[in-house]
Parts: sequence; C-alpha cells; structure tokens
Amino acid sequence: MRNPLLLKQMNFSSRKIEQAVEEISRLPGIGKKTALRLALHLLRRPEGQTDALAAALVDLRQNTTFCSTCHTLSDTETCSICASPKRDSSIVCVVEDVRDVMAIENTGGYQGTYHVLGGLISPMDGVGPGDLTIDHLIQKLKDGGIEELVFALNTTMEGDTTNFYLYRKVKDFDVNLTTIARGISVGDELEFADEVTLGRSIQQRIPYEQSLPK
Amino acid sequence: MRNPLLLKQMNFSSRKIEQAVEEISRLPGIGKKTALRLALHLLRRPEGQTDALAAALVDLRQNTTFCSTCHTLSDTETCSICASPKRDSSIVCVVEDVRDVMAIENTGGYQGTYHVLGGLISPMDGVGPGDLTIDHLIQKLKDGGIEELVFALNTTMEGDTTNFYLYRKVKDFDVNLTTIARGISVGDELEFADEVTLGRSIQQRIPYEQSLPK
Repeated sequence: MRNPLLLKQMNFSSRKIEQAVEEISRLPGIGKKTALRLALHLLRRPEGQTDALAAALVDLRQNTTFCSTCHTLSDTETCSICASPKRDSSIVCVVEDVRDVMAIENTGGYQGTYHVLGGLISPMDGVGPGDLTIDHLIQKLKDGGIEELVFALNTTMEGDTTNFYLYRKVKDFDVNLTTIARGISVGDELEFADEVTLGRSIQQRIPYEQSLPK
Repeated sequence: MRNPLLLKQMNFSSRKIEQAVEEISRLPGIGKKTALRLALHLLRRPEGQTDALAAALVDLRQNTTFCSTCHTLSDTETCSICASPKRDSSIVCVVEDVRDVMAIENTGGYQGTYHVLGGLISPMDGVGPGDLTIDHLIQKLKDGGIEELVFALNTTMEGDTTNFYLYRKVKDFDVNLTTIARGISVGDELEFADEVTLGRSIQQRIPYEQSLPK
C-alpha cells in the first residue's frame, strides 16, 4: 500500500483480527501490514503455538525481575552471574543494557561481573543521570571490593556523555578505570575502515605478543 | 552477530526471557535478535500492554472462524460482507487469501462478494486443488445465482496454474468469467514499465470514456 493514509482505513472482516493487529503493531518496527502477516501466520498454526507465545509474554512481564546487584534481567533476586563463585566480582563491566551483557557473555572471554546502567544519559529523550543506576554503582564503589571498572558503553553521543559523567563521578575512587578496545574488527580490511577507527587502532597499538591467542 | 553459529549459544541471564525469545522468534521473519528487542521493549512498557497483546492473540486464535459462504476470516458464521444486503452476491471475486479481500475492500470500488481459496495450487509446497476451497466454489456455481466470476489471483506461477485449473473447472457453467485489469499503475511512467505489463496495457486497451472517473 503506497499511500500511508489508506492504512488508517484498513478494512478488517473480523474485529478480533483488527484487535490483534492493533496490539502487535504497537511493537517497535512492526507496522500494520507486518502485524497482519504475523496474525494470519498464527491462525494457520496449531492453537498451542499461540497459547505458548501468549503465556511466555505474560510470564516474562510478570515474573522477570532485575538483579539487585548488577541490574541485569534475572528470574531471581541475584542473577546467575553475580551468584556464581567462578566470577571475579572485583572487576565490574559497566554496560548500557542487558543486550550488552549477553553480547559480552557470548564471547566467553570475560570472567568479571557487570553493572547495567539501564540506559544512557540523553537530555533529548529526557533521560538524566537520576534515571540510571549510577547512584548504586557509586555506592558499590564506596562499599569497596571493586578493583577495576571496565567502561563498555557504545561510542554514540549519549554513550560518550554518559562515559564522561561517570568518569567524573568515579575518578577519585581507588579503582582502575579501563575501557574496551576499539579498533579494526577481526577479519576487516584496513582500506575499508573508517578513519576514526583506524586512527584509534594505530594510536592505541599494543605489544605484538599480547595479540597472540592464549 | 555475524556468525550465525553463535546465535545458538545466546546466553540469557533469565530463563523467562529465553522462553519469550524462543516463542517470538518462531514467527516468520523474526530472528532471535529482533525477538530479544521486542521482549525487552515489552519489559519497559506497562504490564497492561503485554497482557492486552497476549489476550488479543489468544482471542484471535480461539474465537476467529472462517465465513461458511466465502471462507474469509470472520467472527461470525457468515461474514459481514456476505451478510450485507448492499453487496451483490451474483458477482463473486476469487482471491487467494484474506489479505486480498482487505486490499480490494480498501479500494471501496467493489460491491460484489468474494470467494477465498485459502492458497494457490503449488506442487512444490505440496498444495493440491483438494487443499483449497475449489469444490465449494463449484458447488456454489451449481446452486446458481452467480452471474460473474472475477479472477483476482496474483500473476505468479502458482497463481497462473490455479487460474488455469479453475478456468477448466468453471468454463462450462453459464457464468461470465472476468479477470482484474493488468496494466501500468496509475501514476507510473511508461518508460520505466516492464515490457509484459506495458504489452498487456496496450493490447487490452479500453474505450477512452471508460477511463474517466464516474
């Protein structure tokens, strides 16, 4: 449908499919046409699939909580990462949200713990430092036991703002401040890299031995 | 995540979000990453939105039925189109599925009724004539009262196959067989049109007066 105005008067032969399309299209990135395709797909599938989907969504929303230590999504008061004796709680990686935790966990290369901010400082979106879990991070630093704080926020304007705000808040604590390495992706070709990334890669070069697999 | 193999070992800090992502990603065109984004979005929204979505899906699946006359989606035994006294039941438009009904209804330019086949003949996908509502259409023709049958199937290989199969089945009935006009879209420029469409447009030209708005 080329004319977006026409979408408003989409004619549904069923009030129920209209409601389903209405609710599905409230999800981000899903328009009315996609919502209709998804609803019709569910109608062609066994009823059990729709029931399982609905139950999983309600269960997720009602029974998921956030870890009281690191604020990541968890089914329990303390998440499995914070509760694990194998993880080094003296190293804390500061990330924006739970997706970053999952991304780092997927690498299998990090044995410390996390602190999920729950967003980034963004005056445009009305998100200030008070909306994030920064106070709790400061409290954890005051309580002691943290030796290294790894900043792993995205290098967007909001990420850089939050990085800088955090840096000023934590720089007087007796803690190592580090940040994840930025550079050319493994497998990428130098000639196609953007200048900023390549510039950082060359300036922040590391001893060759460190780059070898352990 | 570039390596699709890594997706299999996605680490979820919560079993509930893992289940939700699992169920959401069973929908067509939605991968694990999109599913996670949708699940996290719901977690940030009021609980009522998730409940409404889940309820709408279950309600759709359990309480929607297909019109016993035209096989379109309906909340009632007979759909609102077939039940309407304003619609001309002597003209029946044959379409693939309910989305085509909605598309034609949105034009506001058709006052006849429909017959939804529920798919197209596609040996590749194991869909034969018996899987569609063709027998019911033949029965409706035998019962009488239908004066015109409008073929409005997509011009894909499956659509053409189904068109031809239907044509052989219905050509001996005393009924006008028509098909929707194919040609250059309104507003499109001739020089950019494909040859087949432009060829049909010129061969199946109509009297000028017919092209004027009524």
